[in-house]
Amino acid sequence: MAATTWEDSVKSLKGVILDMCGVLYDAGEDGGSPIPGSVEAVKRLKASDLQLRFCTNETQATREVFVAELQRMGFDISVCEVFSPAPAAVAVLKERGLRPHLLVYNGVLPEFDSVEKTNPNCVVIGDAAEKFSYRNLNDAFRVLIALEKPVLFSLGRGKYYKEDDGLKLDVGVYMKALEYACDVEAEVIGKPDPMFFQKVLDDMGIQSHQTLMIGDDLVNDVGGAQHCGMKGVQVRTGKYRPSDEKHPTVTADGYVDNLSEAVETILKLRGQ
Amino acid sequence: MAATTWEDSVKSLKGVILDMCGVLYDAGEDGGSPIPGSVEAVKRLKASDLQLRFCTNETQATREVFVAELQRMGFDISVCEVFSPAPAAVAVLKERGLRPHLLVYNGVLPEFDSVEKTNPNCVVIGDAAEKFSYRNLNDAFRVLIALEKPVLFSLGRGKYYKEDDGLKLDVGVYMKALEYACDVEAEVIGKPDPMFFQKVLDDMGIQSHQTLMIGDDLVNDVGGAQHCGMKGVQVRTGKYRPSDEKHPTVTADGYVDNLSEAVETILKLRGQ
Repeated sequence: MAATTWEDSVKSLKGVILDMCGVLYDAGEDGGSPIPGSVEAVKRLKASDLQLRFCTNETQATREVFVAELQRMGFDISVCEVFSPAPAAVAVLKERGLRPHLLVYNGVLPEFDSVEKTNPNCVVIGDAAEKFSYRNLNDAFRVLIALEKPVLFSLGRGKYYKEDDGLKLDVGVYMKALEYACDVEAEVIGKPDPMFFQKVLDDMGIQSHQTLMIGDDLVNDVGGAQHCGMKGVQVRTGKYRPSDEKHPTVTADGYVDNLSEAVETILKLRGQ
Repeated sequence: MAATTWEDSVKSLKGVILDMCGVLYDAGEDGGSPIPGSVEAVKRLKASDLQLRFCTNETQATREVFVAELQRMGFDISVCEVFSPAPAAVAVLKERGLRPHLLVYNGVLPEFDSVEKTNPNCVVIGDAAEKFSYRNLNDAFRVLIALEKPVLFSLGRGKYYKEDDGLKLDVGVYMKALEYACDVEAEVIGKPDPMFFQKVLDDMGIQSHQTLMIGDDLVNDVGGAQHCGMKGVQVRTGKYRPSDEKHPTVTADGYVDNLSEAVETILKLRGQ
């Protein structure tokens, strides 16, 4: 599909965007653990002449708490470098005067503190994990079905992610459930929404063809980035499955065993 | 859409199929309560020259327990007149040598007693209500995603039903969730599957054009029956919503306020 391999475009790169869960660390009950070599790889990218941003669909914690956790693992990352769906959703809600019924992880609730939530006229779902009980999903459904024109926002559309003890269902699965129940199409905030990627490019002040996205989610990271004109490389960590390399519609510009290998290749080709 | 109203076909009818929840009774935490006039309406149909069967996607109890509950409400119904998805699923599983991982309501589990369930190679979901927890849905997902070719059966594809305290999400919503998570299309057992309706017709020994289906679910009862060549009438009880009468793809052959009105009309037109 790609006329050139990703290595051919490395010299013209001006920036790199990294997905976080499954690239930097594996999530887990205890907060997760870094993927071997990733802490060092981030450090090397930061010391290079490339711009670096982090783009996640993580919605289980505020960015502040989330970044503190990554710092604890040893990553040199600051809040202003991280783009996540909840702050983007808050901006959309305020712009459109919408009052959300929230079905999100408790940890991310503080991101929505400044939003009016009484008498809701839309529903926002994020990766709520254990909070995706029958009762909670039913409550969200009842809010939607009572609206003349239901409005549903989904913070990402991922199918599943990997934690220490195995694969776990992600928000996209519950988005599909509510879409079917209410005959509505959700508005996705987060990857692979092009608007979401564009904000990251704007922040770096560079063009999409100068940018490489590295992620473990073939469709949302790699395919989403390619759709915006970036190169997309998939790591064989996190939720990667061998069948991804034979996917019917998305072909990565490259596959690497892990972030460390990707960074090694990039810096070598750039003579750094 | 219909060239004639359903009343015009009443004289040539040989049988009637009734949906149960929302037509005979409203479900509720305490077992539910009969819809006014429905007990008498069933009695009058049974006393007529029409054949009568009951066709439900109910999967919260065995047919024996379910029918006993309806008898307690005063309905003259016996187990052999009731067609429900679980026994049909058991037949399919045995025919194909499949061992199910079950995500169904506890009450219906005994229907599957005779089926081998170790080392599952498919998933069967029914209306599991509160059992549709994040953990249980994740367990079903993990069974499916580990199979080379995931096989998912759904006992019905309903979106929601009505209980005393409001609308509740039905199995179809969770079917869509797992379909999306695993890139698989579920095999539906129950209404509106034509095979399921055909078994009811076979049992009565009559043709579809001689049969009227009465239900509260426009798509699964009315549309499903019409798809098989029956007439389909919607009652304005149960999950009925006024917007059903302006549905983009399904138009009932008639609408009645309740089962009592339908039976009154049928018997009057047949001079009984």
